[in-house]
Amino acid sequence: MIERLAIIGVGMIGASLALALKQARAVNHVVGCGRNQLNLQKGMDLGVIDSYTASIAEAASSADVVVIATPLGAMRQVFEQIVDIVAEHTVITDTGSAKESVIKVAQTVLGEKISQFVPGHPIAGAEKSGVEAGLADLYQNRRVIITPLESTDPEAVAKIESMWQACGASIEYLGVEHHDKVLAATSHLPHMLAYGLVNYLSSLNDHDEIFKYAAGGFRDFTRIASSDPVMWRDVCISNGEALLTLIEGYKNELDQVSVAIRDGDQDRLLELFGKAKSERDSLIGNC
Amino acid sequence: MIERLAIIGVGMIGASLALALKQARAVNHVVGCGRNQLNLQKGMDLGVIDSYTASIAEAASSADVVVIATPLGAMRQVFEQIVDIVAEHTVITDTGSAKESVIKVAQTVLGEKISQFVPGHPIAGAEKSGVEAGLADLYQNRRVIITPLESTDPEAVAKIESMWQACGASIEYLGVEHHDKVLAATSHLPHMLAYGLVNYLSSLNDHDEIFKYAAGGFRDFTRIASSDPVMWRDVCISNGEALLTLIEGYKNELDQVSVAIRDGDQDRLLELFGKAKSERDSLIGNC
Repeated sequence: MIERLAIIGVGMIGASLALALKQARAVNHVVGCGRNQLNLQKGMDLGVIDSYTASIAEAASSADVVVIATPLGAMRQVFEQIVDIVAEHTVITDTGSAKESVIKVAQTVLGEKISQFVPGHPIAGAEKSGVEAGLADLYQNRRVIITPLESTDPEAVAKIESMWQACGASIEYLGVEHHDKVLAATSHLPHMLAYGLVNYLSSLNDHDEIFKYAAGGFRDFTRIASSDPVMWRDVCISNGEALLTLIEGYKNELDQVSVAIRDGDQDRLLELFGKAKSERDSLIGNC
Repeated sequence: MIERLAIIGVGMIGASLALALKQARAVNHVVGCGRNQLNLQKGMDLGVIDSYTASIAEAASSADVVVIATPLGAMRQVFEQIVDIVAEHTVITDTGSAKESVIKVAQTVLGEKISQFVPGHPIAGAEKSGVEAGLADLYQNRRVIITPLESTDPEAVAKIESMWQACGASIEYLGVEHHDKVLAATSHLPHMLAYGLVNYLSSLNDHDEIFKYAAGGFRDFTRIASSDPVMWRDVCISNGEALLTLIEGYKNELDQVSVAIRDGDQDRLLELFGKAKSERDSLIGNC
């Protein structure tokens, strides 16, 4: 049971955590913190949070667990504003989609209190934003990756583990660099590709007509291009190197398709598409 | 009412057409034709078709409407096998995702009977294959594009129009070249990008782990990579030029993202992602 939980950044990720913990009766009081008062008030109305404040320090001051669920670029100032405030027993965690940059900032700002920080990342979400996007079952049967440091207090890790398990998630451990590489591939790169496709098609002459004739496949394919631009700007800044390597590699992959099309190489095209289909069907299921 | 409908290629598209027409009581007898007897027998068991044959000529011989719903590469031989068989009143149509190549083949093979051919393309489908993927409501509120030629018999066009309208679809007319350009953008390019992404990630060292940590966004994004490889090989061959231009343009778009990441240009990243999000949200809805 978490007596008092502070959620800094009450968007889909933070709100879903609050709802899941409440449903599991694993939290007593949730205090929300953010810059958008309307969003926080909505959070009160929806029963996601029990109180709110615009002051990060105030939210964190008496919290047992502080969850930083802001875009990555806002995390430094959160650490700065809580470092002198948090009690010894308070555990700090985050939900950022890139871990190395957050950890660097945390190490710089938190000093000795770095032992209280558990870097985390729930592998869940959607393109929706704001507190009303919160879902009590968002983490049900999902993975939460934790990338603890040598200096991280094992009791703090255990507390964050139980928190996510109470939401129905399973815990996995990955090294920091490994996490960032894997997520660059499965999440960051696809978001770049989807944003890029929408922008590219929008730039074409007959773009109104193009979108008019888009069918279900296109909707699914571009859904993630409706994701929060600030969040994804920050991911690019935080995990830029891994992302740049992947974008280049992906362009080379596209070149293989182009060459096969240019050569009219039917066997090669069939091989490429057949390989992709069977990989996808077998590895992530036909769904 | 179509007395006798021949469906050449009883996959998701053909089966859905049969089911929709039956539900609307707009067809009396559906004869299925294909090379896979197991698939055709399943079609019988599921009530999708009323009889079947492996002979294209036999299927077409007494049909009022012949729908060619095979991959594009198989259409030439269908035209060849029906040209001397089809009655004067028989209307021939197809469901191919690229129109110029089909029309060229039809013009060459059908000769004077080209007036009986109505080039069509229902903007619907999914990554599933085979007769069991058929859905009676697949065309409900969807668009069917018809690209008639000057030589096309208006009565034949009217017949195909009513056929699709009976399935709940609305009819749109596009020029052939225009159709192929628009579809290259909304459908053919995204399929290449999805196939490319799955192949690229599969080629990485830790690809098992990569797929393990894929979340919902990734599943949606790569769903179309589970599409039929033969169908998409044929699309590449049929609409290669438009596709090559788009792949190149798309790579340039990705370069804009890479440059912004490399420069750490936060404003530019926010602009790119914000533009894409608002385009998608406004043009195809937040769904």
